[in-house]
Amino acid sequence: MFAQLQAEIAQKYDIHFNNLALLEEALTQANYINEHPEYQGRDYQRLEFLGDAIMQQSSAVYLFKKYPDWDEGRLTELRILMVQTRSFAALSRELHLDRYVQLGRGEELSGARNRESLLEDLWEAFIGALYLDQGQAVVMRLLDLVFFSKIETGFYDRFVDYKSKLQELLQKNGTVDINYEKIAEQQIENNEQLFTVSVALNGQKLAEGTGKSTKDAEKAAARIAYQNLTK
Amino acid sequence: MFAQLQAEIAQKYDIHFNNLALLEEALTQANYINEHPEYQGRDYQRLEFLGDAIMQQSSAVYLFKKYPDWDEGRLTELRILMVQTRSFAALSRELHLDRYVQLGRGEELSGARNRESLLEDLWEAFIGALYLDQGQAVVMRLLDLVFFSKIETGFYDRFVDYKSKLQELLQKNGTVDINYEKIAEQQIENNEQLFTVSVALNGQKLAEGTGKSTKDAEKAAARIAYQNLTK
Repeated sequence: MFAQLQAEIAQKYDIHFNNLALLEEALTQANYINEHPEYQGRDYQRLEFLGDAIMQQSSAVYLFKKYPDWDEGRLTELRILMVQTRSFAALSRELHLDRYVQLGRGEELSGARNRESLLEDLWEAFIGALYLDQGQAVVMRLLDLVFFSKIETGFYDRFVDYKSKLQELLQKNGTVDINYEKIAEQQIENNEQLFTVSVALNGQKLAEGTGKSTKDAEKAAARIAYQNLTK
Repeated sequence: MFAQLQAEIAQKYDIHFNNLALLEEALTQANYINEHPEYQGRDYQRLEFLGDAIMQQSSAVYLFKKYPDWDEGRLTELRILMVQTRSFAALSRELHLDRYVQLGRGEELSGARNRESLLEDLWEAFIGALYLDQGQAVVMRLLDLVFFSKIETGFYDRFVDYKSKLQELLQKNGTVDINYEKIAEQQIENNEQLFTVSVALNGQKLAEGTGKSTKDAEKAAARIAYQNLTK
């Protein structure tokens, strides 16, 4: 079974995992072992301990080099957004770790295979195993492909509360009037609608945003206004 | 000035720092820059962001490999003890970073040069600079010399609350009677005294400990009892 995952990873990322026992350890839950007393291996928790630290350092090194002009506050903020349950769970799914994990029966029945927190742990354990098997440089290469590249595409923007950030920025020197207003609404395919919202400061328009709900359109407007003001 | 620190580090640790500007950045506080508008460099905060993550990963990798039989709970506990203000401040002093840091005048007057939190930041910034200048392997070599070696000598034991840990361990299966009793007191040099305390579980002696106060002797007894019971 793990030879198949090994082959998938080789084909997709050109990474040739040597030690299959390590890959299996990264994908074995404690409950599975409890239910299989004859099982010789370990569960993933030690590798998760290791992988957590590898993800922290890898992300810090990447951000430090990528954004030479950012101060430590901004670097820390983006690192916190990156290194979190939802983004790691997405990576586990992308590598199909959710399909290969060995779970206890109760965990299986309770839907653990789709539980974000389990998938986050698996990602960290997998990265711990990859580090031991292939070293730091290969970890960084994989992260470049599947993780850091998503920064460029604004993947992490969805986790940022730009409406709060814009308000904070504009109110730095006292109370201001920030107003969101729906300015257009159009029918698109599948019976869906596209909304356009403007955001204004003391009556002066800062930006427009669009989205499939007014809430999404407001968020988009706030993001654009915020990014323009902090460029 | 930083050439002198560079020479000290080369002599003591055989580490040859190349980029003096990076070493200077790691040892320059923001307040110093505010007071010297002509100053061209940066303060240490970006390097501190980087070094924090380097220390986390380095410690995790070291512990993972050093203690193959420990579970992740025990690994995490020791890592938390290691990666903390007091131990990093001690390392800054050991490398004389406290002597070289460029501080603002107000900070200097308020005693920042001896402030544990500043010395912790400096250590992280220095490790960030060392990583950029020399790479991970040299960071690990320095940490082996000045940091990891202290685990062997029980350096981190002083930060562990063994009385609480012993109580927790003994009470796992219900209430028990744990009793500390002073059993000896002797005069030593410099008008000091040495106390010996025993710790007993339900009237049965577990261990003895000595110290220059009864409190220290109790801690020592608790540590020995705990270590005997968890061996």
